[in-house]
Amino acid sequence: MQINRRRMLQLAAAGVAAGFFNHKVLAETQPITAQTTFTLPSAEHPLLLNFNENSLGMSASARQAVINHLNLSNRYPDSEREGLIEDIAKRFNLNTENVGLGNGSSEAIEAVISGWIQQANDKKQAVQVIAPDPTFGIYEDYAVARNVPVVKVPLKADLSFDLDAIRSKADQFDGISIIYLCNPNNPTALLTPNSQLAPWLDNIPENHRLLIDEAYAEYAEGDPQFTSAIEWARKGTERLAVTRTFSKLYALAGLRIGYMVAAKSEMDYLRQFLSADNTNLTAAVAARATLADNAFLQESRRVTDESRRMVMKALDELGLTYVASSANFIFHRIKGDSVEYAKKMKAYNIVVGRAFPPLTNYNRLTLGTPEEMAYLIQVWKEFRTKGWI
Amino acid sequence: MQINRRRMLQLAAAGVAAGFFNHKVLAETQPITAQTTFTLPSAEHPLLLNFNENSLGMSASARQAVINHLNLSNRYPDSEREGLIEDIAKRFNLNTENVGLGNGSSEAIEAVISGWIQQANDKKQAVQVIAPDPTFGIYEDYAVARNVPVVKVPLKADLSFDLDAIRSKADQFDGISIIYLCNPNNPTALLTPNSQLAPWLDNIPENHRLLIDEAYAEYAEGDPQFTSAIEWARKGTERLAVTRTFSKLYALAGLRIGYMVAAKSEMDYLRQFLSADNTNLTAAVAARATLADNAFLQESRRVTDESRRMVMKALDELGLTYVASSANFIFHRIKGDSVEYAKKMKAYNIVVGRAFPPLTNYNRLTLGTPEEMAYLIQVWKEFRTKGWI
Repeated sequence: MQINRRRMLQLAAAGVAAGFFNHKVLAETQPITAQTTFTLPSAEHPLLLNFNENSLGMSASARQAVINHLNLSNRYPDSEREGLIEDIAKRFNLNTENVGLGNGSSEAIEAVISGWIQQANDKKQAVQVIAPDPTFGIYEDYAVARNVPVVKVPLKADLSFDLDAIRSKADQFDGISIIYLCNPNNPTALLTPNSQLAPWLDNIPENHRLLIDEAYAEYAEGDPQFTSAIEWARKGTERLAVTRTFSKLYALAGLRIGYMVAAKSEMDYLRQFLSADNTNLTAAVAARATLADNAFLQESRRVTDESRRMVMKALDELGLTYVASSANFIFHRIKGDSVEYAKKMKAYNIVVGRAFPPLTNYNRLTLGTPEEMAYLIQVWKEFRTKGWI
Repeated sequence: MQINRRRMLQLAAAGVAAGFFNHKVLAETQPITAQTTFTLPSAEHPLLLNFNENSLGMSASARQAVINHLNLSNRYPDSEREGLIEDIAKRFNLNTENVGLGNGSSEAIEAVISGWIQQANDKKQAVQVIAPDPTFGIYEDYAVARNVPVVKVPLKADLSFDLDAIRSKADQFDGISIIYLCNPNNPTALLTPNSQLAPWLDNIPENHRLLIDEAYAEYAEGDPQFTSAIEWARKGTERLAVTRTFSKLYALAGLRIGYMVAAKSEMDYLRQFLSADNTNLTAAVAARATLADNAFLQESRRVTDESRRMVMKALDELGLTYVASSANFIFHRIKGDSVEYAKKMKAYNIVVGRAFPPLTNYNRLTLGTPEEMAYLIQVWKEFRTKGWI
């Protein structure tokens, strides 16, 4: 069984996995005051390279914005919510009616999946969800809760999406197929080029629904092979929803803020499946401040790019292959099994990604700061002398 | 058409109701630094007595907790989330498996309604939602989005729930009835006594599902007529879910945090309908700090109780009747129509509650601080000299 974050939380709620969290509980009793200063990891404060969080920490501007607005915490944050929608619309040259905020993109993904399932039910049509495998797994929880079958299409040998097979599953289905595509994909960090997606986006059949999860798209911007599916939503393409998050490049995972973009008619429908008042004040003002903070965004991207180069060089030297990364993490070969490898890393106070079956001879590594990567690379060298990697 | 907050936000998203929000936009460009100091309301900073927010502002302990934890904003807040669940469980002598956090009780209500609708669908049974009218309206949005019929049962002449009529609608229905009961009710602030609810809770028929919204229950605590439905959830009563919020007594509406309580089996099922990672860091640490801050909680309750006494005395003197209030607001008679009355109050820089048809000769007034109520009472006296009230 895959143990993803959600499943782990469920186990923790039942008291099963308390041990997994002890390091965090301890870390939070003594708040970290200067995250960009690298301190040697310890058992109590391990180096967290497991959840694709942004090691830089939130921007100083976001931090200040939160503090400035805390005295409004007793009020429903309607105006900041509206302001954030406007800021996002401006950034992508959209109308506000094309944008819906989510409590993280997790809620946006839930709204899209449950909305389209409802649409199929209303039309008395069968419905299924199709996704490549492995990929980011919460879509599956949402489908399973609603008793909707999930069709998983294995990645190709080069770990790219088998789009022909996915499309063909949808074409052959007598009903509506919701297709979940994470681009760049998680856990591989691999970009699906625009040349492959554009023909589908240009002409989405009546019984297809495309959910494009662009959680890591900010790391692909500038790559000539990448075009955001938001371009199609802007043109009014129906049967398409695109989700994004402020948890990665924007470093706001803890504040929970994401969004979805869709054509007006699609958004008018899907918005009903977002819960009321779903945007919290601190996330709204932090996201707005960070959106306006080009210096932070450039630094955030630069740091990840630098860390990626360091890690690629080290992997090359170690003779370990990896998937081309267009995100803030990298999926690389290890020696032996991923679970064993993660245990050994843990003993060196580094927490790396979980196993992604069937690719258990790979590990997903979050790209932290260059200082963190330098430490990791030292550990890798130590591992090599021991024959562990 | 009723214009509730959600509908207003939808209109605002479409650019229709921008004017409604201007005062807030203006208020937020200059953050309020000392909310408990009363300053005379102005057109730009009106006295907000419309959304049942807590005029005291968040507790100093919550504010400090947020600031202390901001450096963790880049991390998923799993441990604080787990900690809050434990704190809530302790407070009510529950197990953690009985508690589910929501992004405000709004999301918890959505999860309960969509979960039970799904349950009916899975059993191939018809489903309907029954609620008294008027009441807090978001349950209806969630039902309508899912094409589920809503049966509204008018309040009795004394504005109490017509529980016999509600029950009878459920008993006569060939399928599952989800019954939404807000206790104390919004907009009336009227408590439904335990003597009326207990028989139903003691024996919930197979095809009934009871959703008890206790958003304002903290204001009823200590009243011998009130027993929380959480008592039944603790005993393992199935087909029951109870929702609560930190938006009212706890003064954290802006941070979005609420929860639901249910028997283990019920919670195991309903938890699937909450979105993944739905609890933000700032809300979690602020809620935990406030839960532990008895001084603030006592003051919060005391202030509302004092304001309620002041307002009741003033209404008595004006000869205006009102419903017995067990919440942080009061539903009182006005002269003429609620919409007209609200307009006139707006001209005096006080924003009061919207109209709740068919009770348009009543207004819902949030109980702010005693200083705010003193100002309001002055305005009422002025209104009386003009014959407006």
